[in-house]
Amino acid sequence: MTENAVKVRELGEQGLIAMIHRLQAQPPLGTIGIGDDAAYVPAPAGGGWLVTSDMLVEGIHFRFDWTDPEQLGDRAVAVNMSDIAAMGGVPRVALTSISIPGDYDSSRVEAIYRGVARALDRYHAVLVGGDTVGGVERLVLDVTVLGEPGPAGPIARRGARPGDRLVVTGRLGAAYAGYRLLEAGHRWPGTSSWERSVLRAQLSPEARVACGQLLAPLAHALTDVSDGLQPELQELTRFGGIGARIYADRLPVDRATRKAAARLGEDPLDWALFGGEDYELLAAVPPSRVGEAQRRVAAEGFVLTEIGEITDQPGIRLVRGEEEVKLDAGGFDHFRLEWAGLAAPRP
Amino acid sequence: MTENAVKVRELGEQGLIAMIHRLQAQPPLGTIGIGDDAAYVPAPAGGGWLVTSDMLVEGIHFRFDWTDPEQLGDRAVAVNMSDIAAMGGVPRVALTSISIPGDYDSSRVEAIYRGVARALDRYHAVLVGGDTVGGVERLVLDVTVLGEPGPAGPIARRGARPGDRLVVTGRLGAAYAGYRLLEAGHRWPGTSSWERSVLRAQLSPEARVACGQLLAPLAHALTDVSDGLQPELQELTRFGGIGARIYADRLPVDRATRKAAARLGEDPLDWALFGGEDYELLAAVPPSRVGEAQRRVAAEGFVLTEIGEITDQPGIRLVRGEEEVKLDAGGFDHFRLEWAGLAAPRP
Repeated sequence: MTENAVKVRELGEQGLIAMIHRLQAQPPLGTIGIGDDAAYVPAPAGGGWLVTSDMLVEGIHFRFDWTDPEQLGDRAVAVNMSDIAAMGGVPRVALTSISIPGDYDSSRVEAIYRGVARALDRYHAVLVGGDTVGGVERLVLDVTVLGEPGPAGPIARRGARPGDRLVVTGRLGAAYAGYRLLEAGHRWPGTSSWERSVLRAQLSPEARVACGQLLAPLAHALTDVSDGLQPELQELTRFGGIGARIYADRLPVDRATRKAAARLGEDPLDWALFGGEDYELLAAVPPSRVGEAQRRVAAEGFVLTEIGEITDQPGIRLVRGEEEVKLDAGGFDHFRLEWAGLAAPRP
Repeated sequence: MTENAVKVRELGEQGLIAMIHRLQAQPPLGTIGIGDDAAYVPAPAGGGWLVTSDMLVEGIHFRFDWTDPEQLGDRAVAVNMSDIAAMGGVPRVALTSISIPGDYDSSRVEAIYRGVARALDRYHAVLVGGDTVGGVERLVLDVTVLGEPGPAGPIARRGARPGDRLVVTGRLGAAYAGYRLLEAGHRWPGTSSWERSVLRAQLSPEARVACGQLLAPLAHALTDVSDGLQPELQELTRFGGIGARIYADRLPVDRATRKAAARLGEDPLDWALFGGEDYELLAAVPPSRVGEAQRRVAAEGFVLTEIGEITDQPGIRLVRGEEEVKLDAGGFDHFRLEWAGLAAPRP
């Protein structure tokens, strides 16, 4: 190691992923590999597999004074299910690898796995394996979910075309509102309905699995909004010389999120654009199919909001009132924020 | 939490797995779930998936003063490949979830992923995804491997019948010999061929994927020897009122392992029985098929040694000279050994 060695912290998450990607062999044709929400591996017999892993680390992604352990287990499953949802897939089974400080009460682990079981039941999947390790400082929970593509096959994050409409399920900014309330000392379940609503978005997100299956056959591109709207739009438009234009007054920011932002004296628009962890779905849909997409999602009890369109010009632009501004990168990088307490997304 | 709460450390790895298992829903018929080397999930379209996860934790499973990072990446893949081998499967793709201290040199992570790529290439698999997290004290690397069953379908750990012969690939005790040499201050690559041989077994194990595919159609039961021979025999004979008898003088303990044991003044038989991490395959094969199994494995360049037989009486028995003794449980439990430095298997 030299004195000029680059530290992992300086490389950052994106730099690290690029390095890992560069070192690995190309997957066979038809495979969707590193860089999408989940991987897709075609099977010789037909069908094929969707697979995704997400690791939650104590002190980075959660704190036990903020979350109850059953919520944590549920959330660890849900964030993976969201990746399957973003491929239009059908979840089937999960594995959990967990490393646990030896002095934790076993009842805490039991509660985590009650949450895992509860979430798996909700998404019609079962636990089939994993690993357990003791003797660490922090709890680490890595969940892998396997699923199958829907009837129309897997849908990738890229494939949007100029003129496509951008649509998003549910609401934006709520999970980050919950994070900010927790940081400000609020605790689940709170004392008012708006508080409870955004705390739930942060602590107990729900993956839009049914919506993903309904949107996949209609969309040119589909992703979840786990890293924030602006970063996800950047990923959606990364290739093909395309960009996106979104409209501030169309973003679905609900009353609870506005209340939380007002309480903290912040602009909820920032939260909707950069907050992350909303686990809603974002799709690029041809204009002629937007109505059908909205009807399908409504039948599941969710609102699908048209927030903008794909443009033939690179870059993400935000229309706010009379002005149109270019949105710079924001979002979430564990590596740089790591020692700043809980490294949640921040505007 | 009450004063009498049971700590994770007291529950131990087996207690924890039993608790997790109890809380989860039963998988659908035909699925092989928690408790085998890898899970098997039948696919509606035919075929189906094998999937397994193993998590390596710095200070528990490895130390950077003992292993070079490329060896570590290779090993993290190999231990998962061994689980696919133990199902007679064909590896296809892998995912890695890694959490990394931010002050580590990025060159260390680069070397780990060179090792991952090298191992995946050896087993004809590719990396398709995963997760990266920063800001922890120890490096944690959780690898998931997906594969397909061989033509004869997946083979479970249970299914052995009285009279079956017990056969094992390669050598036993070598990985533990390597661990003990590292503990005693020896370092890779050592100064003699015997030292290098057992250090390699510990630091760079190879999974017997081809042997697994060849043994699966001939065997009633198949597993790897990752947790030590005696514990694996207990798992192999857990149901059906069966047991095993093995012969001390038939156990394949090679010259390098004997040299290491002599150097440290220990009995290499203990290492072969309880040492663990050998990643060889152990099969229960009907007597009429032993010759064919040995020919097949020999064609791959490995020796398949007959070490004993399945009995119609529960318990594991060891024949040593004139006497037959009952072998009590030994093996590896991270949770109890966690603060004793590197919690490797010990007799």
